[in-house]
Amino acid sequence: MWETFVQHQSVEEIMNDKGLAKIGDAIVNLCYSLAKSKVLGNATGDKVKDSILARAIRATEVYRHISHRTDSGKAADAYEAIVAYLWMKERITVQEIVENLVQTLQIDSKTNRKREEVIAAQSFQHFLEQHITLLP
Amino acid sequence: MWETFVQHQSVEEIMNDKGLAKIGDAIVNLCYSLAKSKVLGNATGDKVKDSILARAIRATEVYRHISHRTDSGKAADAYEAIVAYLWMKERITVQEIVENLVQTLQIDSKTNRKREEVIAAQSFQHFLEQHITLLP
Repeated sequence: MWETFVQHQSVEEIMNDKGLAKIGDAIVNLCYSLAKSKVLGNATGDKVKDSILARAIRATEVYRHISHRTDSGKAADAYEAIVAYLWMKERITVQEIVENLVQTLQIDSKTNRKREEVIAAQSFQHFLEQHITLLP
Repeated sequence: MWETFVQHQSVEEIMNDKGLAKIGDAIVNLCYSLAKSKVLGNATGDKVKDSILARAIRATEVYRHISHRTDSGKAADAYEAIVAYLWMKERITVQEIVENLVQTLQIDSKTNRKREEVIAAQSFQHFLEQHITLLP
């Protein structure tokens, strides 16, 4: 269904696709909201800040494909574009992303926001590391 | 997978579930971004404003279940909660929502923002009207 939008030949091409990043932004927010709901046991949601995704991607080997220095916004866009690519290529489903995040999202109703952000970044890093081999 | 979060007995209960609304917010943004990408032929995305979803839900018969006057934020939350409910109950998939929106999303690269918002509200209204019977 989305094949025409994901004809990229390289990781660099994916990470620079601003359109994919916009779609990925919504996928990331959806998956994080669902993962958090599952962990806490009640429906809830959150927008995932750029700083969280930037921290996650900078900790992975994918990041070396971004040659020049990037700000948090651009690093987060790169993460989001990768997620959109994997989903639109049907390499991964929303349910699978959620299940992967849940594995490492060790928060509870008392976890403060700062701590949650650190843990969320680790979960997103873990997810990306597990799926790097699915990228071109 | 999400059954425990969607045990609601009535539409009113769904529309007042703030947690569901947060999840629905991400689903709505994802589906609109995908529908817009499909219509325009290139990957792109947009956050759907509260005013668009408020206009959509107020034009449907579901709205009479909101007894008191509501602002745009609350009306949009009600719309988002309904979408999350339908998706989490597995009554509808992301692909199906996108295909439904695409049917009426008559925009092109030259459509200005104001006009796009009017058309988007009509598409979301159309979607809801088509799925009212799936609600409790």
